[in-house]
Amino acid sequence: MPASIENWAGQIRSGEVRALSRAVSAIENHAPEAEELLREIFPYTGRAYRIGITGAPGTGKSTLVDRLASQYRIERKTVGIIAVDPSSPFTGGAILGDRIRMQGHAADCGIFIRSMATRGFLGGLAQAAGDAALLLDAAGKQMILLETVGVGQGEIEVVRFADCTVVVLTPGMGDDIQNLKAGLMEIGDILVLNKFDREGAQRFEQQLTAILQIAPERDGWKPPIVRTVATEGKGIEEFAQQIALFREYFDRPERRRARELSYWKQWLLRLLQASLLERVGRHIDEAQLEALATEVAGRRKDPYSAVTEMIADSGMADKLDQAGANS
Amino acid sequence: MPASIENWAGQIRSGEVRALSRAVSAIENHAPEAEELLREIFPYTGRAYRIGITGAPGTGKSTLVDRLASQYRIERKTVGIIAVDPSSPFTGGAILGDRIRMQGHAADCGIFIRSMATRGFLGGLAQAAGDAALLLDAAGKQMILLETVGVGQGEIEVVRFADCTVVVLTPGMGDDIQNLKAGLMEIGDILVLNKFDREGAQRFEQQLTAILQIAPERDGWKPPIVRTVATEGKGIEEFAQQIALFREYFDRPERRRARELSYWKQWLLRLLQASLLERVGRHIDEAQLEALATEVAGRRKDPYSAVTEMIADSGMADKLDQAGANS
Repeated sequence: MPASIENWAGQIRSGEVRALSRAVSAIENHAPEAEELLREIFPYTGRAYRIGITGAPGTGKSTLVDRLASQYRIERKTVGIIAVDPSSPFTGGAILGDRIRMQGHAADCGIFIRSMATRGFLGGLAQAAGDAALLLDAAGKQMILLETVGVGQGEIEVVRFADCTVVVLTPGMGDDIQNLKAGLMEIGDILVLNKFDREGAQRFEQQLTAILQIAPERDGWKPPIVRTVATEGKGIEEFAQQIALFREYFDRPERRRARELSYWKQWLLRLLQASLLERVGRHIDEAQLEALATEVAGRRKDPYSAVTEMIADSGMADKLDQAGANS
Repeated sequence: MPASIENWAGQIRSGEVRALSRAVSAIENHAPEAEELLREIFPYTGRAYRIGITGAPGTGKSTLVDRLASQYRIERKTVGIIAVDPSSPFTGGAILGDRIRMQGHAADCGIFIRSMATRGFLGGLAQAAGDAALLLDAAGKQMILLETVGVGQGEIEVVRFADCTVVVLTPGMGDDIQNLKAGLMEIGDILVLNKFDREGAQRFEQQLTAILQIAPERDGWKPPIVRTVATEGKGIEEFAQQIALFREYFDRPERRRARELSYWKQWLLRLLQASLLERVGRHIDEAQLEALATEVAGRRKDPYSAVTEMIADSGMADKLDQAGANS
């Protein structure tokens, strides 16, 4: 372990903002030192409570997250916020957003806010956000808020790995059939109905309640619906209370152990996949890829045969099959 | 090639609805015969024009897609619609949705509508939708509309592989900073401002125009903004015209060739990844995974070391490195 990494890890553990920021950037950029650092801080993690907050654009997630953070600061808890932005077109936007948001918490060293943008390999999003949460955990942040724009598969992975998952909805998006199928209810431990002062809020709440009737319970927990108007700070205390209730409900040792084990199994599988894909990526024969793509584009070869050829040439198939036979 | 697959492929090529439906299901379920079938029909693909349509829930995508399909039917073009629903909690919802939507096009054999729900491996979404598009292409559908709920990473992959990508926005979602960062502008060849009869539509259009000023052009194409009220059929002709203009713009042989080659290179890489992950999945040692996850949960081992161990034990690393050295 190089002294500098050890030093860096020490700074993170004492909550130094610059060291934390630099570490989040290292994760974003897949820098090789990121993994070393994460190995170093890992033994000091496991104390924070991670809350994943998701919903469609325009539901007011950022405001809600900021208000919840303020509520936790009133309760004298330290807070870390990771806002995952899967597809920011102009990185300047995210940084500007951080600055605007930080103004509300200026000079409060008990709170850390950071946007992350990740690209490249699929699955990288959830892994990067999880790694950042480990950093904040080691830095002693008690409540970690993972906020994600969008309602897609990758985004759902981000919040699914949290201890508690919150889905934010707003009235006025309830008219479409597709909205009811959007799958948000399936992952939400708590549903927030933000902008509850809007027209049609009560009708939308009735629809939601009806859907929740037929949704499967998880371990006996029925997701509550919390009404908020985040811009006016309304309903935030109730929101924090529901999170506390959920936390308490799952805080029994056997439930906690089962959740932790399933969490790490999934995490290891994800890490294994990412690691293998990265290795494969390093060994792609660009000339072969170009030649095969040309043949496929001309319909002289189908893509499935082309990929079988690539795998056969690399010898990876044999080895995998052999590994399977040995195990 | 078994006679039944050949037969099935023949039915698909003559556009038989049941054969098509059965094939889409085979793709959804990762059935082994799906790949055989796709190999068989592949030489007959490459004639359809694929339009990807995405946007947040509640923007009215389904209605817009239905109206666009009707417009194409007026123009005597055959249409295939694939509505990708990444996270449908109750599969019944999707099927119900299909039935409701089909009523509008009842007894028109020139149109095929199908919802798809895929789970499991990351990246499966885009691949499954692309495979379904190949089927519709071979079935002689001239215009293929790929519709996806959500704005996530996986969803963006679905539409990114289309020939033309449309992003649907609505007024009233323009107040948030995060909305402007949502990255939709970056992938849209055409922007549709649906529900243009809503309050604040003009102001939102001005904001969009301002953002587009600083967005990078692609091959000299500036994404137009199309105003629609899909529920009333307003703006649909203009929408179809803008798609036609875009298609014409990129229809020059050299542009087309470059796009096709880059398309298939990415497609092959995705297929290669999926294929490798599937092989790895088959060879996971469950007992080892469980034991390692337990150690990680207890902070006795860090997840990065655990994964390194799994890869070393399987022998995959050696083989990959060896393959790399040989190439």
